[in-house]
Amino acid sequence: MFIPILSKILMKKQLLIIFILTLSQLSFSQSEKNNDIESIKAVLKAQRLAWSDNDIEKFMEGYWKSDSLKFYGSNGVTYGWDNTLERYKKAYPTKDHTGKLNFKLNAISKISDDSYYVMGEFHLKREVGNATGIFMIIFKKINGEWKIIADTSS
Amino acid sequence: MFIPILSKILMKKQLLIIFILTLSQLSFSQSEKNNDIESIKAVLKAQRLAWSDNDIEKFMEGYWKSDSLKFYGSNGVTYGWDNTLERYKKAYPTKDHTGKLNFKLNAISKISDDSYYVMGEFHLKREVGNATGIFMIIFKKINGEWKIIADTSS
Repeated sequence: MFIPILSKILMKKQLLIIFILTLSQLSFSQSEKNNDIESIKAVLKAQRLAWSDNDIEKFMEGYWKSDSLKFYGSNGVTYGWDNTLERYKKAYPTKDHTGKLNFKLNAISKISDDSYYVMGEFHLKREVGNATGIFMIIFKKINGEWKIIADTSS
Repeated sequence: MFIPILSKILMKKQLLIIFILTLSQLSFSQSEKNNDIESIKAVLKAQRLAWSDNDIEKFMEGYWKSDSLKFYGSNGVTYGWDNTLERYKKAYPTKDHTGKLNFKLNAISKISDDSYYVMGEFHLKREVGNATGIFMIIFKKINGEWKIIADTSS
């Protein structure tokens, strides 16, 4: 009788350990996801402040500095970081054009361990007339930093 | 003299093997990427044909059947597969509204091993008036099948 009881106790203990490990794994994933989302929000906040300060170069730090970056708007696809910067500079030549930027973030969702998408609205308060639109952007963690690798705005 | 020469020959051979392995790895990744892109194009083709046949349910097979699917349009975010189906049915109630669908795919780019984004245009030829717009969708490989997990169309 002794051995079966001992083995039952051990089995229960093992199950308990597995249960606790699973729970802590889940809570770890959840807190990791929360960290990711906070980091992504911080990038967007830095972009918003830079833009509202008419500092397009600083705003561009949120984007992946690569020829593979893609920006998609009503005028088609812009390929690469340099062309995206040029496009912004052309479309928003002065402080009156950049104005004050606000985002409304409607969804931040995980794609894979190192990528998320964000759906949101942009609102520009400007002397030359307000502007508003929607966007979907894709963030990827590259060398430990969250960067926008694709942006569709309209 | 003999041993150094032999070891040099062996080193060269090892370098050659590493070189060949790297090359075959690269060509494997490339062909895997091509397969992914072909599979994604096949999903979009099936969607295009189903839509043009006024079969919205079949068109919806391209989407992830999950409450986490998100569709983003000018009227905000639609959450989940069921609501997305309802939204399409409401916006396109008859064959005259669905019309004939064509896509122009401007970019299909890898996000991570199991996810891609697609930037493209949709063109609807219809009796009630043609419609056109741009979209960015995110594909993810789920249980071996490529499914749209997020769609922004405007």
